[in-house]
Amino acid sequence: MALKMFQAQIKLLRFLFLLIVIYGEVEHVYGVWPMPQQITQSTERYLLNPRVFALSYANDSMAQSGCSVLDVAFKRYFKLIFPDFAHGTGRDKSLRFEPFTLVVSVRTGGCEGYPDEGSNESYNLTVSARQAALRAESVWGALRGLESFSQLVYQDDSSAYFVNKTEIEDYPRFQFRGLLLDTSRHYLPVNSILSTLDAMAYSKFNVFHWHIVDDPSFPYQSSTYPDLSNKGAFHPMTHIYTQSDVRRVIAHARLRGIRVLPEFDSPGHTLSWGKGQPDFLTPCYKGDVPSGSFGPLNPTLSSSYQFMSDLFKEVTSVFHDSHVHLGGDEVDFTCWKSNPKVQAFMAKMGFGSDYTKLESYYMENILNITAALNKISIVWQDVFDYHEHIPKDTVLEIWRGTPAEIRAELGRITLAGHRVLLSAPWYLNHISYGQDWRNAYTVQPQNFSGTEQQKELVIGGEVCMWGEYVDATNLVSRLWPRACAAAERLWSNEKKTSSVERAFPRLKDFRCTLVRRGIQAEPLFFGHCKHEYSGL
Amino acid sequence: MALKMFQAQIKLLRFLFLLIVIYGEVEHVYGVWPMPQQITQSTERYLLNPRVFALSYANDSMAQSGCSVLDVAFKRYFKLIFPDFAHGTGRDKSLRFEPFTLVVSVRTGGCEGYPDEGSNESYNLTVSARQAALRAESVWGALRGLESFSQLVYQDDSSAYFVNKTEIEDYPRFQFRGLLLDTSRHYLPVNSILSTLDAMAYSKFNVFHWHIVDDPSFPYQSSTYPDLSNKGAFHPMTHIYTQSDVRRVIAHARLRGIRVLPEFDSPGHTLSWGKGQPDFLTPCYKGDVPSGSFGPLNPTLSSSYQFMSDLFKEVTSVFHDSHVHLGGDEVDFTCWKSNPKVQAFMAKMGFGSDYTKLESYYMENILNITAALNKISIVWQDVFDYHEHIPKDTVLEIWRGTPAEIRAELGRITLAGHRVLLSAPWYLNHISYGQDWRNAYTVQPQNFSGTEQQKELVIGGEVCMWGEYVDATNLVSRLWPRACAAAERLWSNEKKTSSVERAFPRLKDFRCTLVRRGIQAEPLFFGHCKHEYSGL
Repeated sequence: MALKMFQAQIKLLRFLFLLIVIYGEVEHVYGVWPMPQQITQSTERYLLNPRVFALSYANDSMAQSGCSVLDVAFKRYFKLIFPDFAHGTGRDKSLRFEPFTLVVSVRTGGCEGYPDEGSNESYNLTVSARQAALRAESVWGALRGLESFSQLVYQDDSSAYFVNKTEIEDYPRFQFRGLLLDTSRHYLPVNSILSTLDAMAYSKFNVFHWHIVDDPSFPYQSSTYPDLSNKGAFHPMTHIYTQSDVRRVIAHARLRGIRVLPEFDSPGHTLSWGKGQPDFLTPCYKGDVPSGSFGPLNPTLSSSYQFMSDLFKEVTSVFHDSHVHLGGDEVDFTCWKSNPKVQAFMAKMGFGSDYTKLESYYMENILNITAALNKISIVWQDVFDYHEHIPKDTVLEIWRGTPAEIRAELGRITLAGHRVLLSAPWYLNHISYGQDWRNAYTVQPQNFSGTEQQKELVIGGEVCMWGEYVDATNLVSRLWPRACAAAERLWSNEKKTSSVERAFPRLKDFRCTLVRRGIQAEPLFFGHCKHEYSGL
Repeated sequence: MALKMFQAQIKLLRFLFLLIVIYGEVEHVYGVWPMPQQITQSTERYLLNPRVFALSYANDSMAQSGCSVLDVAFKRYFKLIFPDFAHGTGRDKSLRFEPFTLVVSVRTGGCEGYPDEGSNESYNLTVSARQAALRAESVWGALRGLESFSQLVYQDDSSAYFVNKTEIEDYPRFQFRGLLLDTSRHYLPVNSILSTLDAMAYSKFNVFHWHIVDDPSFPYQSSTYPDLSNKGAFHPMTHIYTQSDVRRVIAHARLRGIRVLPEFDSPGHTLSWGKGQPDFLTPCYKGDVPSGSFGPLNPTLSSSYQFMSDLFKEVTSVFHDSHVHLGGDEVDFTCWKSNPKVQAFMAKMGFGSDYTKLESYYMENILNITAALNKISIVWQDVFDYHEHIPKDTVLEIWRGTPAEIRAELGRITLAGHRVLLSAPWYLNHISYGQDWRNAYTVQPQNFSGTEQQKELVIGGEVCMWGEYVDATNLVSRLWPRACAAAERLWSNEKKTSSVERAFPRLKDFRCTLVRRGIQAEPLFFGHCKHEYSGL
């Protein structure tokens, strides 16, 4: 049914065959995704047996037994390293097995803290006979090293576990490697979010951007304003995130070195807020009378600012991160323009008929509110495009445009001295037939005209999974392994990972690892995994 | 992030609101998907309680207790009608509930048979106080009626079950409503197939077209030629269908009124066959020497025909259906042309340099083999396009072309007196962003130039889910609810289901029904189901 495709398959197979010939010496060496900065592997391999395998703290480590982040990581990774053992079916008749210990050493403690923008995620890993040494500056780097070690272990046909002699020196290219979930257009059960965090950790993502509310629904259960979810959620009991749900998500993320960045987008994208907060939205007019429909938040009322201040006071205490996302995108002026009170406000403020000035005025106020709460704000690029005065530490996020437009925007924003995040090329909710991960892989975030200083203002990027057509039924297979392409671009050295063709067999392997770990990651192309997703 | 989209959403919401106003009288009447030929519903509704609800055989029914198909259907549908009861959480304190009985009457027996092309699937359903009467010619029609009844039952906010006074007279527009799964490009676990059969029955599909083998792998474990899967499957133990797996699939399908149509595609698409069957494939030549690669089946050897005859003898006894699919598509002549023995055979047969004659010769032989086994053959359209002499009862399946080309092909094939199946517009493995079910819905299978007699030769169509990018991880969410669009086109009256806009809210509801029944059907657009997919 697809001859040309099959011919392409054959071509690809020949290429893969060639690769096997070239790398024949190391055919049993398993890779790490995303690619470490430096990795040296040998064909010398060591047999591992779960019965005599241990994870332990080095004597010189600042973190020791009792370190919450690493104690549970040791348990978690033991199961990931020995998947059969976890299911009770592994080889455990340890006849000729030598003990093997993965010794972890952390230079600074901080076991009870939260990961943040300044977290050091670098690590060194040396795998040799009987022992592997994992050295990291912080527990967050140790987590990344544990993940890499877990990916180095493989099983032969008899299901015995092996790891090859390996040296890794590794650190992320970008500090901010995010993934956005939209829980407003469809509600995502907490379990879907937790399992997304698991998969994020496997790909070394470190920021969960929670686009928690939007026009269609308001699932966040606010303690200050409970009516927001009582009236604005799809259902006030079954389709909400309680305070304890949020705490569970943040705790689960923390243990995986993942920050949770909440977004409460305004002044647009707030229709669902209006249901539980009277006089919050702008009433639209048809001629001289209200039309019955509503537009963005009403920026002319002082009550709006009081409300936002109260809400953000709550939100910034519930969410630990130093950053908060304020949205600020796609503000439609039609309704504001129709409203006589907004018109009067415009005149009073001397804004003329330039509604971007009204939007500016609103955003400045909100940015002041979050600044007063000691939070750094992230906003969508619109805020930069239409406004003159925004605090220097505000981070801009690029979400739209052709590749050329994106490059130009990167130049403009960094020239103005702002830090910037790139998400436009990684809108993974957009799907197409075939291997579209290739597009996500070939993005070059720093390929724009600018000084070295400007390039350094690119602090990372985000995969976005908007919810128009996505809920818990298709979230996982749509995200994974496509998001892994962005993960490698954000973590690894661009020059060493410039070839999509070389990435393909590695990603195919990694996808099978994800499936083995229970992540319903879709296939890249025809073929099979040793352990398929069972469908149950 | 998607303003225009949101404006479209608002427009749509307004339209839906209008619909609710128009149909306000019947707002609690739940629909049936696919739309029955005749349905009259009233707002008069009856409270149902699982404790006092029964399914039973009418006195005048030819099928009575002991009828395998209906006995298990009664159990199955009881659980589908009362989903909470099945989970032990339903209301069961039956205070003021009146007993309700669904009485089933079947005019002909045939409880132990298999559904086939001549099966009568028509039924009448009358729901009134205390009783519903379901009358069908055959058990297969009774199954369709049970499905419709199950979709009429709904729960109010207090979880009580209701059904409205309803009259349905129903029968399928097309006799053949198929769904193709490809188990060669990726192996699908048996459970995935069984659950696909479940979902097919919910949409009244009645043919499972099992594209069981192809170039990448040969998972069918043949008793005659075990090396085909021993050497041609992805794995000879874990990635195969044993004889008992096949029997399980056929039995599961039968109980749902679904035929299982096996496809063993040749002479192309047979690379995996060559691994377990020496001298089966044509060796390709580079100049005077074999290149080491192989092409289609070798049609010049009598051993090829003997092998195919033996294989089809087995296959047609394992699979019960009166039809068998022989493939016959996409034969690449390059390899045949390169091979000196094939060239010599061409000369001997007087085929000149017209390799379509060689293909023709091969297909005629294969068609004779299956005819001798008393099976009717289905082949892809290529066989009609390139060959002159094919038996009149051969069914052609259209899989490619623009809409205009498809209409022309429909005209040509039916003018030649052949029955025809349409699958080209329903290649659901092809995906795109947004609501692409709308394209599948608006297909008009009989909209081509031809006589009424020609139109009647269109016996149905098929949804195809080719496996290049699909395995058990994404099969379900990619198939459902998109396949439902084709299901309604193939079952329902085209004039009564011509509006995509009117179908939208019905399909949204039906998708929630599928999710409630455990089918991981993806959402059509933002919104929610009362019972979401749990992600577990």
